[in-house]
Amino acid sequence: MKKDKSLIKNMISELAALDTKNMYLNDFYHTWKESDDEIDAVFKVAEILRGLRENNISTKVFDSGLAISIFRDNSTRTRFSFTSACNLLGLAVQDLDEKKSQIAHGETVRETANMISFMADVIGIRDDMYIGKGHTYQKTVASAVQEGYENGVLEQRPTLVNLQCDIDHPTQSMADMLHVINEFGGVENLKGKKIAMTWAYSPSYGKPLSVPQGIIGLFTRFGMDVVLAHPEGYDVMPEVEEVAAANAKKSGGSYKKVNSMEEAFKDADIVYPKSWAPFSIMEERTNLVEDGKFDKLDLLEKKCLDTNAKFKDWTCTEDLMKTTKDGKALYMHCLPADISGVSCKEGEVEASVFERYIVPLYKEASFKPYIIAAMIFLAKFENPSAKLDELMADATKRIK
Amino acid sequence: MKKDKSLIKNMISELAALDTKNMYLNDFYHTWKESDDEIDAVFKVAEILRGLRENNISTKVFDSGLAISIFRDNSTRTRFSFTSACNLLGLAVQDLDEKKSQIAHGETVRETANMISFMADVIGIRDDMYIGKGHTYQKTVASAVQEGYENGVLEQRPTLVNLQCDIDHPTQSMADMLHVINEFGGVENLKGKKIAMTWAYSPSYGKPLSVPQGIIGLFTRFGMDVVLAHPEGYDVMPEVEEVAAANAKKSGGSYKKVNSMEEAFKDADIVYPKSWAPFSIMEERTNLVEDGKFDKLDLLEKKCLDTNAKFKDWTCTEDLMKTTKDGKALYMHCLPADISGVSCKEGEVEASVFERYIVPLYKEASFKPYIIAAMIFLAKFENPSAKLDELMADATKRIK
Amino acid sequence: MKKDKSLIKNMISELAALDTKNMYLNDFYHTWKESDDEIDAVFKVAEILRGLRENNISTKVFDSGLAISIFRDNSTRTRFSFTSACNLLGLAVQDLDEKKSQIAHGETVRETANMISFMADVIGIRDDMYIGKGHTYQKTVASAVQEGYENGVLEQRPTLVNLQCDIDHPTQSMADMLHVINEFGGVENLKGKKIAMTWAYSPSYGKPLSVPQGIIGLFTRFGMDVVLAHPEGYDVMPEVEEVAAANAKKSGGSYKKVNSMEEAFKDADIVYPKSWAPFSIMEERTNLVEDGKFDKLDLLEKKCLDTNAKFKDWTCTEDLMKTTKDGKALYMHCLPADISGVSCKEGEVEASVFERYIVPLYKEASFKPYIIAAMIFLAKFENPSAKLDELMADATKRIK
Repeated sequence: MKKDKSLIKNMISELAALDTKNMYLNDFYHTWKESDDEIDAVFKVAEILRGLRENNISTKVFDSGLAISIFRDNSTRTRFSFTSACNLLGLAVQDLDEKKSQIAHGETVRETANMISFMADVIGIRDDMYIGKGHTYQKTVASAVQEGYENGVLEQRPTLVNLQCDIDHPTQSMADMLHVINEFGGVENLKGKKIAMTWAYSPSYGKPLSVPQGIIGLFTRFGMDVVLAHPEGYDVMPEVEEVAAANAKKSGGSYKKVNSMEEAFKDADIVYPKSWAPFSIMEERTNLVEDGKFDKLDLLEKKCLDTNAKFKDWTCTEDLMKTTKDGKALYMHCLPADISGVSCKEGEVEASVFERYIVPLYKEASFKPYIIAAMIFLAKFENPSAKLDELMADATKRIK
Repeated sequence: MKKDKSLIKNMISELAALDTKNMYLNDFYHTWKESDDEIDAVFKVAEILRGLRENNISTKVFDSGLAISIFRDNSTRTRFSFTSACNLLGLAVQDLDEKKSQIAHGETVRETANMISFMADVIGIRDDMYIGKGHTYQKTVASAVQEGYENGVLEQRPTLVNLQCDIDHPTQSMADMLHVINEFGGVENLKGKKIAMTWAYSPSYGKPLSVPQGIIGLFTRFGMDVVLAHPEGYDVMPEVEEVAAANAKKSGGSYKKVNSMEEAFKDADIVYPKSWAPFSIMEERTNLVEDGKFDKLDLLEKKCLDTNAKFKDWTCTEDLMKTTKDGKALYMHCLPADISGVSCKEGEVEASVFERYIVPLYKEASFKPYIIAAMIFLAKFENPSAKLDELMADATKRIK
Repeated sequence: MKKDKSLIKNMISELAALDTKNMYLNDFYHTWKESDDEIDAVFKVAEILRGLRENNISTKVFDSGLAISIFRDNSTRTRFSFTSACNLLGLAVQDLDEKKSQIAHGETVRETANMISFMADVIGIRDDMYIGKGHTYQKTVASAVQEGYENGVLEQRPTLVNLQCDIDHPTQSMADMLHVINEFGGVENLKGKKIAMTWAYSPSYGKPLSVPQGIIGLFTRFGMDVVLAHPEGYDVMPEVEEVAAANAKKSGGSYKKVNSMEEAFKDADIVYPKSWAPFSIMEERTNLVEDGKFDKLDLLEKKCLDTNAKFKDWTCTEDLMKTTKDGKALYMHCLPADISGVSCKEGEVEASVFERYIVPLYKEASFKPYIIAAMIFLAKFENPSAKLDELMADATKRIK
């Protein structure tokens, strides 16, 4: 697995050819707001940082510095990925625990954003629970610190990394894609490959849409045939579907939506069966919460679960897997999965399928810390390839 | 904003002339226990550290080391300021979360203080809720670690930084003063300036007294005319008033107390309208809690809020602001403020006043991390100017 | 107290003679699974690291890196010891707070272990509440990350440090022993010394068995006369008693169990009176929890407390202390203790006894961070003495 140093040097040279100027001192929200060079640069920097770490070369570019995390939902994976990425670069993480904090009623996001950012180099935010909220919140934070920087309140402008919002989950989709690139032996091998991003049954409710949206918004850029499959009524946000369609057109791939898991799986090279709540339900929930109609939330949940239950056959079985390309499609999931007979009675995937793909699934997840670190790195260094060359030349040992 | 290096060198030279011997290996409790040189040194070191950071020069004087935080009340601002200050110097923060900890009933403060301090360089404590308790607790911790150090239990004596107690809030008042010094173009311009530290209405109860006490205890040292204004019955601790009076006399300024917001605001150069609970109520609350009479706390709160409500006209309006010096007094607040029509129906300040002062308010807050870092720095280095010279000469980049 | 550098050099030379090959990249579970050389090496490295720190020499062997902590029970001492140890070596700590995390029902330990370990150098786990569970959990985590490493999921195999399980509490027992070695002027002075590890009354229930087990499992290796005393029914795990007996035989010491505190204390050089729950009760509790019979837990607790109450005379009194060797046995405790009249009405120890031993008790605790750091150090460096020599030669200042 360990990359040798000449390979790392090559990647640094390739990185030097990419235009990343616009990432410098900028934020990362949605993959589709980034150019192809920028997306490519994230993958390259991620692989280079990983390579350096494998060779015990320190990538601690911050002598001191702070990264702020704001998790508005419970999190293990993303929390550890963010901490790992920050530590890799030399940043300490301070979590804004809104429950422990003194955030007063009516205190503005603008105020909090500035108060926590006097020495912040990075802010990572996960806020995925309410349609129309998460991304808006992130933008509000970003414009608050921008204003603070311009007004001389903050000495530096912290970079914002989207650790999941209501629209996209870029650190997930890019980790997923980097996994795919590695599994298929290079980005050049992805053209014409079919990926089935499909809804799957889960006995839970309210799973965010940002994973399927992130996948169709990113994977369509690589000339792949991207199929989104879900039961009627489980639509994702239409604006992201438009992005996917436009991407596919440009990349020479295709994007289509079907209402059959079977059709999606047929001859697929990659399958990504995962539950989510329908966009319309998520919107209704957001409205109920906004209007303070909490008593109606239970009803909505019940309705949603009842509807879910009609689609228990949307599950990734061995039989379905057999219909994929050579019966050997790469099975993907952002984890944790709802595994039938293991974590629930009936869920997204049959236990034997899940179990067979354990190693690739864990590898898939292993890219996330490096993707986050790459996003931070590209926002902090105007000439990232020169900086990485410097790190290689210094060759400071990570473990002495 | 960025200070150039020659300016920083000048400040280091000025620092060298100050006597800070007594701060070395010592604690920081109340500003009035520090000499003028010591107060001046904190401001200078804070500005120097800020200048170095602005010039991307690392001030990481600890290669490794631990700072302990104990927050006996919720906190965002102070928590982030403390973490920032520690990170700036190279210390990692470990929070003593009393809820997560195994602190047994009856376990002594002495025991806990030693158990957490084996590798602690700094302990920061916020404990402001009960009159007669916070400072006492801090002193108990400090004497416990002193004893531990003398008995060979601890290899180093951690420095205690008062992050707010029942008596003083030195990191706040000193950040406030450094802000004032910057706004007025130097400490030499403060003589004869009038500051109105006034009570203001808030629909909440039990706000600590340490902010007004901190302000009158510190600002009276600079030859200013300090006016404390509050409704009858909202007295602060008499011993702090005595400090203020003595300071004013010595500095050639003045200290007086009035019962009229109008009188305080009249021709003021600076206004600091902020709510607090009356000393007598805070004392009564402390006694009730001590005697286990928790059922009477609600009654006390109701009584206090009812009394508060009689003084809703104690609010910082545009009309009042017009009566200040040229109608342009500097408005200050420790944040978060109770803003009428924004964070509450009726509060400490009119929204338009607050909004107009947003940038200076945020700048005011921005000094706190540097003040804390300066307090730690001065407690850890016998010859602080030499150490700062060294940092400048080394010029290790904070971001590589 | 401060060790001079020539003494440290000597200890490094002695360390060089010990065989620690098998500790490299390995975990630390139970002291009795480690060879005499390995146990000795932990003590030596702990003392050397302490000596270097006393001489302000940095022992930061990790330029960056992460340590994960998992506390499945509240903790202050161990949490701070672990953080201190990690900081001393240059590792940042990220806590897996299972309440804050998104660990799904049915998500496997294998999955979580891998998800948090992508950049983990160390995992410290405290899981002591259920018989047959804690150690098993630790082994499951360790085999999961081993598998992850072998499958190329993890670039490094994090080292597991047992911060307390149901069977042993090695960081406690080794800190205790290092304290004893220091108090008695060297390991060579321990032969023939008598230690009384005795049960003592406490008005609480369910205290883990791992402390007495750890003590008898370790102290019997040093040629000491180890006496375990408890009321009938308060047995520890029989397999650990077997370890103790075998150790004693090998080391030329002795191990015996008695049902009288008086007999144990008689002429003892060291006494360690501490409460624990009987093994059989702990097993019953585990079964009730496993079977979901939570309603029966209260009954079990009541039964246990009622039984406890029959043995209130099992308490460390001044009178009992007088019967020890010259009336001056070293009193030990892992803290916090249940002190009669202080932290409870009737408890493990009389206040005057406890108070007289405060300084040695705190010193006892002070070794734990260094023991933990030594365990990590020995797992991370194949040639620990060479690495320590290097640190001494570099002599990087911890505080600049």
